[in-house]
Amino acid sequence: MTLDELVSYAKRYGFVFPGSEIYGGLANAWDLGPLGALLAENIKKAWFKKFVDESKYNVRLDSPIILNSRVWEASGHLSSFNDPKVDCKYCHNRERADKLVEKASNGEVDADGMKLEEIDEWIKSHDVKCPVCGKSEWTPCRTFSLMYKTSQGVVEDSQSTVYLRPETCQGIYIDFKNIQRAMRLKLPFGVGQCGKAFRNEITPGNFLFRVREFEQLEMEFFCKPGTEEEWFEYYKAFCENFLTSLGISKDNLKLYDHPKEKLAFYSKGTTDILFKFPWGFDELWGIASRTNYDLSKHMEFSGESLEYLDPETNEKYIPYVVEPSVGVGRMFLAFLLNNYEMETLENGDTREVLHIHPYLAPYKAVVLPLIKKAHSEKATEIYEMLSKEFIVSYDDTQAIGKRYRRADAIGTPYGITIDDDTLSNGTVTVRNRDTMTQDIVKVEDLKDYLRERTSF
Amino acid sequence: MTLDELVSYAKRYGFVFPGSEIYGGLANAWDLGPLGALLAENIKKAWFKKFVDESKYNVRLDSPIILNSRVWEASGHLSSFNDPKVDCKYCHNRERADKLVEKASNGEVDADGMKLEEIDEWIKSHDVKCPVCGKSEWTPCRTFSLMYKTSQGVVEDSQSTVYLRPETCQGIYIDFKNIQRAMRLKLPFGVGQCGKAFRNEITPGNFLFRVREFEQLEMEFFCKPGTEEEWFEYYKAFCENFLTSLGISKDNLKLYDHPKEKLAFYSKGTTDILFKFPWGFDELWGIASRTNYDLSKHMEFSGESLEYLDPETNEKYIPYVVEPSVGVGRMFLAFLLNNYEMETLENGDTREVLHIHPYLAPYKAVVLPLIKKAHSEKATEIYEMLSKEFIVSYDDTQAIGKRYRRADAIGTPYGITIDDDTLSNGTVTVRNRDTMTQDIVKVEDLKDYLRERTSF
Repeated sequence: MTLDELVSYAKRYGFVFPGSEIYGGLANAWDLGPLGALLAENIKKAWFKKFVDESKYNVRLDSPIILNSRVWEASGHLSSFNDPKVDCKYCHNRERADKLVEKASNGEVDADGMKLEEIDEWIKSHDVKCPVCGKSEWTPCRTFSLMYKTSQGVVEDSQSTVYLRPETCQGIYIDFKNIQRAMRLKLPFGVGQCGKAFRNEITPGNFLFRVREFEQLEMEFFCKPGTEEEWFEYYKAFCENFLTSLGISKDNLKLYDHPKEKLAFYSKGTTDILFKFPWGFDELWGIASRTNYDLSKHMEFSGESLEYLDPETNEKYIPYVVEPSVGVGRMFLAFLLNNYEMETLENGDTREVLHIHPYLAPYKAVVLPLIKKAHSEKATEIYEMLSKEFIVSYDDTQAIGKRYRRADAIGTPYGITIDDDTLSNGTVTVRNRDTMTQDIVKVEDLKDYLRERTSF
Repeated sequence: MTLDELVSYAKRYGFVFPGSEIYGGLANAWDLGPLGALLAENIKKAWFKKFVDESKYNVRLDSPIILNSRVWEASGHLSSFNDPKVDCKYCHNRERADKLVEKASNGEVDADGMKLEEIDEWIKSHDVKCPVCGKSEWTPCRTFSLMYKTSQGVVEDSQSTVYLRPETCQGIYIDFKNIQRAMRLKLPFGVGQCGKAFRNEITPGNFLFRVREFEQLEMEFFCKPGTEEEWFEYYKAFCENFLTSLGISKDNLKLYDHPKEKLAFYSKGTTDILFKFPWGFDELWGIASRTNYDLSKHMEFSGESLEYLDPETNEKYIPYVVEPSVGVGRMFLAFLLNNYEMETLENGDTREVLHIHPYLAPYKAVVLPLIKKAHSEKATEIYEMLSKEFIVSYDDTQAIGKRYRRADAIGTPYGITIDDDTLSNGTVTVRNRDTMTQDIVKVEDLKDYLRERTSF
């Protein structure tokens, strides 16, 4: 499936609409439509279930988008969360300078880490042309902050400048002590959070892959120094297993260990889980072993102790952190791309089908009265019974075959048809999305039937 | 319970922490701690269940915080989403001028709708004093925009000015056509959305009641003109029933119909559901009958048709809208205030108990090995079984009585004790938070036991 096909599929069925479309859009912003909102919700539910709720040790947090600006001084974002950019002097097109160099060298030069003057030098000596107008006159390379700045409060002065968070994890670090105390936690423990983050990217693109406003799922796992390697390995495997157990094919995944010389001085390692996107393998999930760097910085800048007193050894230390971090939008793309199929049936017909894991499917089942007049009342009754526990849809339009096709296309795993047999002996026909086989099920067994087949 | 007591309780048990606390905070910002994040999540789940998922007609949406700025021109927010303010010339304290007048008149003057000059006049003639420094020299009354402004994209000019949404509903209006088409919906239908909104309030306060960054649950219910009164009545009753069926006492609720002369010219009516907060009855939920005003404005500003072609009558019209709108934070406060009790027991002891509806309780149950050494293995097994379906906690600290008390205080409806009987005949003792009575339950029946008692 190409990216264009995916965009069109996602709009047609109500997964994703272009953002602010009636006003001509807004640079690569997207709305999650009714089905997309459900899919995203299910991705988050699955993540919280496995990363937090099924663990005795891990807890949640929900901290704000706007934090005290000192947080971003301490984290280093205010001074160094920048990308290098150049502007075309002729047409004013702006480009990320490092990406421009990488493209112009056909990927042979790695511009990450090059100094601004080195980039300028390279662009000049290779006569790199503007991809928009074809000229090769560029402004000197400058840095461009990715932070969204706004002001808050009643007086507009420098005191009131605040930022939209570019990542959710800092909210966890600064609450480390409150969480540990209130929940009476012992190390190791993890704190998971989901929320919006904002990065003013120079070149957003690739559908949901790189957007300026996005949702992150981040966990900071705090552990005793010396045990971080073990937990780093644990979470790498855990993340990969999360994906494959939700149906992502191993062939679509690859691990990439950041080379030692590219790591920040404090880092003990970073591994990306790459997914095979239409443009090639690219980052889906990042797992980082960050030592005590972040907590130490916040101790330094706030003057508050973020040390942990180990009740077993009476030692005091600053915990180490292992951080798995993933974007909801990237997982969303991965699950659609991995599971979409334009299938050719035995009789030569084709059907669109989304073989998505039932736990992630927007609807667990669709309730289908065979004949509207005759079966709507019973069907509504069954819909009402099921919707108390499952998110199900109801479809009484068109011929039954067309309704099956629509359910297949949006990934609904079970189609429940209500017909005369339902009225006479209380059974329904349950059609399986993937195999297209049918089971006869008693109405009173339907909840158990779905519960067994849609859990994770 | 006073507000101060609530703030302290919420921090102590991990419901709510002061935002950015290690950096001295940030004007009335709050973090939802582990238990608060779960409570908020459950409030949202309950809302989506009743307002969207159990209805055949209603769907979800998840649109961004940053929209094309034309949206806010069309909605009128850029020109008129302001509050009147005055500054003390002496100490530079800023006050909302309308509130200042209302306070100074002991609530006898309703300053809402007064012109700026009228406010100035009133303040002067009544010699209103600054509540901070006591002087009475004020700057002339001016309007102050509640919109957070930032800029996005690669060039900083007026084109790139964007705003953080002050309400979630506009994202629904501008997607009306996409949603209706992709989901093949017929009127009437509703679109529900949950998300962050931002208002640069001059005086935030009262804990979570008025914060600058908050989460809304909004539904726009689109219907045929002429049926709006019926749906307005329907949703007023539906919202009230939602609250009472989740345990809010009727005595804590009151309806307030906005008087006709106070309504906007296009409005057919607004009713607030008021809750009895510690400072008196105040707005919890607003239900508004907004005619076709919002869709018409977006048609006018975008030039796109947002009309609906009625397939039954072949008429074309712009749908009318009924909008129930509530803040997650206000519901959060209401559920804590309504359900917290410092109970005196028969023996004279006291216990803190949160009698919250089991569906909203952060944990549905706590798993308690009676003796750590002897019962931990079995307890862990039971924890793992239950946590596949329910959010449960595990507590093996302290004496069992103290563990019960903590579970009571955070609202955990069931305490499951694992003891020698569990090992010998597979039963556990389940203690009820509210009645403190105990049931003997077979381990294999536990899931059904909890499912029956924690659903909504």
